[in-house]
Amino acid sequence: MGSLQNQEIFENGFSGTIKPLDPEEFRRQGHLVIDFLADYYKNVEKYPVRSQVEPGYLKKRVPGSAPYDPEPIEEILCDVKKDIIPGLTHWQSPNYFAYFPSSGSIAGFLGEMLSTGFNIVGFNWMSSPAATELESIVMDWLGKMLKLPTEFLFSGGGGGVMQGTTCEAILCTVVAARDQMLKKIGRDEINKLVVYGSDQTHSAIQKAAQIAGINPENFRAIATTKANAFGLTAQALRETIESDIESGLVPLFLCATIGTTSSTAVDPLGPLCDVAKEYGIWVHVDAAYAGSVCICPEYRHFLNGVENADSFSFNAHKWFLTTLDCCCLWVKNPSALVKALSTYPEYLRNKASETKQVVDYKDWQITLSRRFRSLKLWLVLRSYGVANLRKFLRSHVKMAKNFEGLIGMDKRFEVVVPRNFATVCFCISPIEIGGNYGQIVASEEETANYFNAKLLEAINESGKIYMTHSVIGGVYVLRFAVGASMTENRHVNFAWKVVQEHANQLLTM
Amino acid sequence: MGSLQNQEIFENGFSGTIKPLDPEEFRRQGHLVIDFLADYYKNVEKYPVRSQVEPGYLKKRVPGSAPYDPEPIEEILCDVKKDIIPGLTHWQSPNYFAYFPSSGSIAGFLGEMLSTGFNIVGFNWMSSPAATELESIVMDWLGKMLKLPTEFLFSGGGGGVMQGTTCEAILCTVVAARDQMLKKIGRDEINKLVVYGSDQTHSAIQKAAQIAGINPENFRAIATTKANAFGLTAQALRETIESDIESGLVPLFLCATIGTTSSTAVDPLGPLCDVAKEYGIWVHVDAAYAGSVCICPEYRHFLNGVENADSFSFNAHKWFLTTLDCCCLWVKNPSALVKALSTYPEYLRNKASETKQVVDYKDWQITLSRRFRSLKLWLVLRSYGVANLRKFLRSHVKMAKNFEGLIGMDKRFEVVVPRNFATVCFCISPIEIGGNYGQIVASEEETANYFNAKLLEAINESGKIYMTHSVIGGVYVLRFAVGASMTENRHVNFAWKVVQEHANQLLTM
Repeated sequence: MGSLQNQEIFENGFSGTIKPLDPEEFRRQGHLVIDFLADYYKNVEKYPVRSQVEPGYLKKRVPGSAPYDPEPIEEILCDVKKDIIPGLTHWQSPNYFAYFPSSGSIAGFLGEMLSTGFNIVGFNWMSSPAATELESIVMDWLGKMLKLPTEFLFSGGGGGVMQGTTCEAILCTVVAARDQMLKKIGRDEINKLVVYGSDQTHSAIQKAAQIAGINPENFRAIATTKANAFGLTAQALRETIESDIESGLVPLFLCATIGTTSSTAVDPLGPLCDVAKEYGIWVHVDAAYAGSVCICPEYRHFLNGVENADSFSFNAHKWFLTTLDCCCLWVKNPSALVKALSTYPEYLRNKASETKQVVDYKDWQITLSRRFRSLKLWLVLRSYGVANLRKFLRSHVKMAKNFEGLIGMDKRFEVVVPRNFATVCFCISPIEIGGNYGQIVASEEETANYFNAKLLEAINESGKIYMTHSVIGGVYVLRFAVGASMTENRHVNFAWKVVQEHANQLLTM
Repeated sequence: MGSLQNQEIFENGFSGTIKPLDPEEFRRQGHLVIDFLADYYKNVEKYPVRSQVEPGYLKKRVPGSAPYDPEPIEEILCDVKKDIIPGLTHWQSPNYFAYFPSSGSIAGFLGEMLSTGFNIVGFNWMSSPAATELESIVMDWLGKMLKLPTEFLFSGGGGGVMQGTTCEAILCTVVAARDQMLKKIGRDEINKLVVYGSDQTHSAIQKAAQIAGINPENFRAIATTKANAFGLTAQALRETIESDIESGLVPLFLCATIGTTSSTAVDPLGPLCDVAKEYGIWVHVDAAYAGSVCICPEYRHFLNGVENADSFSFNAHKWFLTTLDCCCLWVKNPSALVKALSTYPEYLRNKASETKQVVDYKDWQITLSRRFRSLKLWLVLRSYGVANLRKFLRSHVKMAKNFEGLIGMDKRFEVVVPRNFATVCFCISPIEIGGNYGQIVASEEETANYFNAKLLEAINESGKIYMTHSVIGGVYVLRFAVGASMTENRHVNFAWKVVQEHANQLLTM
């Protein structure tokens, strides 16, 4: 190449190789991928729901190092189909009933596209005012939909922030509570701080406490019982607190749950907050799963008592059509978060922040950089509207009720805990199983657990549907969580048939 | 409606209202948004780079609560154009030279689309084997591109994980180091632990230490000097450590930086690791910005010494065409992370995890839920290839050199610190400013700082380009960071003209 040409190439700034954001190429490849994904949704029922690959499958199919030369998108998409899709567990399949849903939607997807397309880094107001302001607005919208007390809204002196996940939300609030308390009692007392949850509380609280430097010995997973529907009782909480105080420890933080992961149990917020208040404990309400459905007036009562809590969170990425990740956290006292999480290095100083007229969300969370997450929730709320969102959530509850009804008609099965929302915990009852499976285990309950675990594995291996399990009060249960965005009632009926077929097979073996 | 129709509606599961993942509607709306974004890129130069809105602008434009009824996507996109875009600071603009780049690309965007489309939750291997396996593979690819010692790769007993941001990566490693140390010396000693960085280290380390419960008094921001190009010297580190030990404290963690945020200074890894090793300190290397360019052989020497560090991270979302967020973290000893961050509740137990043949990334990070981030980095590496990525990065360095050259030709300006990569720190020198601006401030240096701050604000208010500032060794500098994906050399030349014009205006006022 002549030097003039080299100069021209340099003027283009890319040495003539790549134009990473060429609008027309963006358009061409973008349309390709939209079609690819539309076809994926059309065909998603054809794939086994739980991936059937063996550990290490992908290493055998891909090169050991990155390519030196570029490869066309068409080839890459072929590889996605050939190598990646078989290794996916299809959370968007209508036959997905595992864990909790990860409910995608067109609106959520488009919001994420816009966010990724703009690709701004919204750490403070200045870095992209729209990102901060839309987030505050949408968090107030959602807070109103949930009828949160105004103290949780910006309009009432509190405020909301979008975090990635509940783990982050809980960690932020634990750290805020910790620093508030240590300011009062002195840093030397850090090993005396105690964090409370129940034996049904999500592991996120234990992990958050660990990360925040709370002594692992001071994490209380207070026992729940079937008699109380696996909710944490105020009495048990009080007894545990009293015992800790007697030992010279300092109660710090309670995580109460609306819709536990194992069984969607509900902790009674009112009585728990009353106890916590007496002892000056920060109460966080984790409604990661069930928060969504509380926008329906008939479910709102589950949140009664939240007015006495300090913070509240739910995951819009679970059962609210907003793609991963989007955990909505509200606090009554944002300055507690800011005091614990704020840093203000010179390179981030700016006029708007100095005026204190703006929110700088970097001080409400663990990370500095943050995506423009509010776009996707804004699109979900506007694209569907409150009325349709309620209908949609209710349709899932109705499908879960249907499944429960089907279980009720088959005497071999039992529903282990009362269904609160759209998740059903069930098993084959020990009586049905009898002694046939008793060879390698001892008690009737152990036999039943062993059998139900085998049943679940057989079902999941079939690839027809996917469920997961838990152990609640010693009982191994199959969890049937309705909530995937494409699930219709026919899928629930089909799922029940799959369960029955596998049970028939195992029971006659 | 008749009851039969109701029944049919129920069979569809949606009460006839919404089909959130209808493939054809997905296709239609998806294409709309692709075109919307392609047009945005085509027009991005027309917008003021730094948003010109006032605090509270958006509240005045949007309703106070979420709509009850659905709204069409066409209307929402109109509002994005009308209400959101004016509130954006355009990180994708070719005239964006602020902070560090947030370099988007078609490949990164498409990878994020696929990840969002599949919307899997990849906390453990089982939840979607492809997500875990592709991540491990891509992290090994990238590790090889950076010529990281094999101990950092899965193939060498270490391994890599994709976190959201450096803040998370550092927090995870601080917590791992903390727990390792407390196991040795006892939890009661937590307030004795000391964390080290320099006065140029990113605020992420201080925040991570705070969150992890390290006594804030035990965070050392060791002074750097211009004589050492604002790098942390081994001698200063040793002296600080020795002084802490004499005070009965316990040195824990050092964060060394390759490319600091203020001035892209480089800490000398070799000597620092030697000192750290003597005292049993965990060394994390933060190459958030400059890590990218170290895939070019001529820059790899900046990483020399990393073989004696414990962990290493860089942000692919900064200067590596991978959309936010994607921080790549490698550790030599994954079990230190897993010990500190692992939880294993019943509902996550599964056969694959029990066999210990698989990686469960939930134990390598703060959160449980995690997106399928590796898709976007995989697409970036394959779509562009190693050769083009190197060329692309070099083109930015070349453009920054060009800018530096332009500064050199105007005697009123000076480059404040030597340029290492594609960021230039410069100012108008105090001599030029003279006494004209001395009314409200005292010394010559303060006058100059005041003047340069005014210059920067005038430039940014023009909306033509966007730069940010820092204060280095007492000097207020304008930071010119090349790296936006659409920046060509003509934009750099234009930027210099804008700087000169505003300087002319201010100097003759």
